[in-house]
Amino acid sequence: MEAERMLHAEEVGELADQLRVDTIRCSTRAGSGHPTSSLSAADLLAVLISRHLRYDWTNPRSRANDHLIFSKGHASPLLYAVFKAVGAISDEELVDTYRQFGSRLQGHPTPALPWVDVATGSLGQGLPVAVGIALAGQHLDHLPFHVWVLCGDSETAEGSIWEALDKAGHYGLRNLTAIVDVNRLGQRGPTELEWDLDTYRRRIEAFGCQALVIDGHDLAAIDDALSRARQATGPTVVLARTVKGKGVPEIENQPDWHGKSLKPDQAERAVAALGGVRQTRVSGPRPEPVPPVPTPTAAPPALPRYDRGTKVATRNAYGEALRAVGARPDVVALDGEVSDSTRADRFAEAYPERFFEMFISEQQLVAAAVGLQVRGYRPFASSFAAFLSRAYDFIRMAGISRADIVLSGSHAGVEIGADGPSQMGLEDLAALRAVHGSTVLYPSDAVSCAALVARMVDHRGVTYLRTTRGAHPVLYDNDDSFPIGGSKLLRTGGDDQVALVGAGVTAHNCLAAADRLAGEGIGTRVIDLYSVKPVDRDRLLDAVRATGGRLVVVEDHYPEGGLGSAVLEALADLAEVRVTHLAVRGLPTSGTPAELMDQAGIGPEAITRAARALVSGSR
Amino acid sequence: MEAERMLHAEEVGELADQLRVDTIRCSTRAGSGHPTSSLSAADLLAVLISRHLRYDWTNPRSRANDHLIFSKGHASPLLYAVFKAVGAISDEELVDTYRQFGSRLQGHPTPALPWVDVATGSLGQGLPVAVGIALAGQHLDHLPFHVWVLCGDSETAEGSIWEALDKAGHYGLRNLTAIVDVNRLGQRGPTELEWDLDTYRRRIEAFGCQALVIDGHDLAAIDDALSRARQATGPTVVLARTVKGKGVPEIENQPDWHGKSLKPDQAERAVAALGGVRQTRVSGPRPEPVPPVPTPTAAPPALPRYDRGTKVATRNAYGEALRAVGARPDVVALDGEVSDSTRADRFAEAYPERFFEMFISEQQLVAAAVGLQVRGYRPFASSFAAFLSRAYDFIRMAGISRADIVLSGSHAGVEIGADGPSQMGLEDLAALRAVHGSTVLYPSDAVSCAALVARMVDHRGVTYLRTTRGAHPVLYDNDDSFPIGGSKLLRTGGDDQVALVGAGVTAHNCLAAADRLAGEGIGTRVIDLYSVKPVDRDRLLDAVRATGGRLVVVEDHYPEGGLGSAVLEALADLAEVRVTHLAVRGLPTSGTPAELMDQAGIGPEAITRAARALVSGSR
Repeated sequence: MEAERMLHAEEVGELADQLRVDTIRCSTRAGSGHPTSSLSAADLLAVLISRHLRYDWTNPRSRANDHLIFSKGHASPLLYAVFKAVGAISDEELVDTYRQFGSRLQGHPTPALPWVDVATGSLGQGLPVAVGIALAGQHLDHLPFHVWVLCGDSETAEGSIWEALDKAGHYGLRNLTAIVDVNRLGQRGPTELEWDLDTYRRRIEAFGCQALVIDGHDLAAIDDALSRARQATGPTVVLARTVKGKGVPEIENQPDWHGKSLKPDQAERAVAALGGVRQTRVSGPRPEPVPPVPTPTAAPPALPRYDRGTKVATRNAYGEALRAVGARPDVVALDGEVSDSTRADRFAEAYPERFFEMFISEQQLVAAAVGLQVRGYRPFASSFAAFLSRAYDFIRMAGISRADIVLSGSHAGVEIGADGPSQMGLEDLAALRAVHGSTVLYPSDAVSCAALVARMVDHRGVTYLRTTRGAHPVLYDNDDSFPIGGSKLLRTGGDDQVALVGAGVTAHNCLAAADRLAGEGIGTRVIDLYSVKPVDRDRLLDAVRATGGRLVVVEDHYPEGGLGSAVLEALADLAEVRVTHLAVRGLPTSGTPAELMDQAGIGPEAITRAARALVSGSR
Repeated sequence: MEAERMLHAEEVGELADQLRVDTIRCSTRAGSGHPTSSLSAADLLAVLISRHLRYDWTNPRSRANDHLIFSKGHASPLLYAVFKAVGAISDEELVDTYRQFGSRLQGHPTPALPWVDVATGSLGQGLPVAVGIALAGQHLDHLPFHVWVLCGDSETAEGSIWEALDKAGHYGLRNLTAIVDVNRLGQRGPTELEWDLDTYRRRIEAFGCQALVIDGHDLAAIDDALSRARQATGPTVVLARTVKGKGVPEIENQPDWHGKSLKPDQAERAVAALGGVRQTRVSGPRPEPVPPVPTPTAAPPALPRYDRGTKVATRNAYGEALRAVGARPDVVALDGEVSDSTRADRFAEAYPERFFEMFISEQQLVAAAVGLQVRGYRPFASSFAAFLSRAYDFIRMAGISRADIVLSGSHAGVEIGADGPSQMGLEDLAALRAVHGSTVLYPSDAVSCAALVARMVDHRGVTYLRTTRGAHPVLYDNDDSFPIGGSKLLRTGGDDQVALVGAGVTAHNCLAAADRLAGEGIGTRVIDLYSVKPVDRDRLLDAVRATGGRLVVVEDHYPEGGLGSAVLEALADLAEVRVTHLAVRGLPTSGTPAELMDQAGIGPEAITRAARALVSGSR
């Protein structure tokens, strides 16, 4: 720490008032935003940035920097006022562009700003992500940076906050401090616990964290608490009793002032009362230099190899390939207490120090992955496809953060058999395809699955791999190529009358149907559309041309938004296409995989019938 | 209670052994299932069903019955063994059909069984749903039934469990008891807290519930705890220290025995050691009779009326219509602390006793709705469309439960403007369409929105209503009809060259584009496809016939799985259709609604261009 740059107490107070003034100015100019939620936390941030946050604002990508996350993302006026105070943005950018079209100072923070690690604004997510960053710092980087999170009191009603504190305690994250701005008022009235700081304290302590209760407007108390937090032997939660709207008496502690900017005349009075506009520049402590990150070895991984025709579950291939790519030291894996099912345990056995057990908390599973990639790691997070739906809001936000994470969902579809519909991922393709910037892969065999795992390591954005429970024959040669966005032509007779399009287990059913159709003299093309998003439009166009537009698309998924939709969307602008779409239209039950696929009408017999009807024109 | 039917202590022990024997028999016969997770809880259930659960097994629909929910749904062998013990199912059905194709005794419980309220199997959901049932009992029904929930210890890692306990405490649910089977072992090894009962206790007490720590194999201790739970003045959590696999020494407290059935020879030995097969029939206490539920008044609600052309936000119409249908006493509403935004506050003002504030915990919001419908209420749960993604796994399971709930998601799409992408529902249509048995509605004006709210009251399954933040002109007459599955022809010139298909805000953009196209002499048809699922295929076929297959589909949603996919899926089997699909393809930022819609290419200008290109054939 460079002590000479530290502000004196009265200067910190001045800084807090500047943050308040700028909060008011930018939100009133925008005509929207959350000034009152910012005003309550201004003193907390003034102390934090001037005396505790070790950050080189000229080098936001430095590995040595502390991290600052606004879990209460709606307090963006305060965050941007901080950025002005440290000189990262100009006063003009703050006041003239906040919430305007084209501005990087959006209504809620996103990594469009280099000092923002992740997008926030869906409450209860910043802290779980911070747990991932802190995990990286303490368990992988072994660097002394600290992770500071500003939380709202309302968001403690989200279960994800308790998943995060539980994991923070479990992993002993002494480099993590959450500062809860307990301003008593939520959006539409008092919070559940209002100013019952003692209940907050008992909950936090029971979840394994140190709780420090302070007056959030007492600068010395804040300073002391943040010092203690940095020195703590475990995670700390600072419970700061604050007043919403603090510093503007006419709106302090008033309901109906959430998410509203002050009117211009109110703002003018408030700014004057706070001492007017200032351009104080604060320079807080800088981090100690740290060694550069070692460049990962570039040797291609020795992927597992499989013999054509042998039966291997793609989840097994996933686990084995994940272990293989684990040779790269930046690859890390996480699981939600089902690693023996997802086969992520293959990685855990080989690289226990880079495997993080998140127990049954899928929200925290995904959030930790997002946090780990903030620190440059390549996280692979695994659970059942069905249970990743538990983290859908986190996946959605990961897309907005442009986070580079891999999600592996096993036990897809009715193929799982006897466990029943609660365990079957049947809406995952729809949900994951609809995430911004996502990639969705659904390999049909072990070779293609392993090859895709290798490609996913350096793929950008949210990448989802759907794997199958049961063992099915290996279809490809180990040296075949499986680009993301590609597909495979599994069969063609040269004179194809119909194309069968499947992925994952239905590719096998399509092959079986093609055998039957061949016996009937119907030339059939089979396409393995392993890349569901992006989809191989060229391959589909070829098939349309070759077959006169006769396609049967088969998926082990509900009919909406999955493989069928991907094909239809790709061919939307094309006339002369007739698609028969086979999918799981009823509610499945228990049974064997074959029974359930036949019942759903996605088995070989149903595909054969559909293809026959398309070719004969009898619909 | 009918005391004469209560078993003596030794008989309860016998019953527990019967439950163990039947657990082993059915899972070994199936060759799969979770016997060890059932064996640990057999003593708990034996005491519960013989001495505390007041249930008329011949009349599972009785309003007087207690509720029994297996939040740890994988312990289905134990649940079904209970059903045999009380005479609800036969020994043959239990042993011969468990997990078989066509059986109602599925791998995880579903309401295909009349004694099962909701599907479980996604952990951490049974308790939150039970909170909704208990809310109904204590705050609406005012009946003395009790809600008993068997939880696993692993699932306490889910944040949703803490959302549930928090709300149980907040609402003082003395009619709710959770029994946690702390058997120390999860799927792939020890749980996070193992047998640290004291930490469990402190967490539970801090969340506002009574905690009773017992030996879960001590029948007298169980009996005492359940008695105390029933007499408690608030919610109770019984923390039962148990041994996984209890009763079968060779697998007791062993890792690697999760989710595995015993081999036939092991099972034979275990059954013999437990005293062999029994057919004891237990008859536990029956509930006191209660008066029949009053039939809701059948008078149609006095829906709000709107003048054509005035600008009204559909979220406002939702709130006003919800208030109107609130005249029916079985309609209840819930919100996630944003009721002033979703406009559910209109209902809360009129019917505060039927409005439940769930604070910022969307998982509990949806779970409580599911619980309320178990008791026959018609719940409307509201939040931002974006934040319902937080509860996606709960919505998925609600579909499997065939629960009748209404979800209202406000602030859909880039139309919200300055708040930025974290607040924009842009994947909700895809996600909600893919839920089994769901209905998805997206009205464009206040009249149609209010009319759909009235229809939703008695609609079955998960019904999703997407509403818009901003005010747009009323398009319809108050007496127009808006059936679910319908659509509206907003404009046609008789000689239409192209059809513009929108819903919600894009219907207005389509109208604006049609005006421009009319000026260019291009006959244009505009369809308001307010029912996204089910979709009005006939209307689309008409448009295809009329326009030579030229459709422009426009949606304020990401391109995958939404309105465009719904149209394409409906027309999949039809050649001669060319669809130009306009959707939000980039990552939105802040801005005005018009700026953001123009940027996304879903505004009037982009629609006009697309239609012009389709008609001219220049693509």
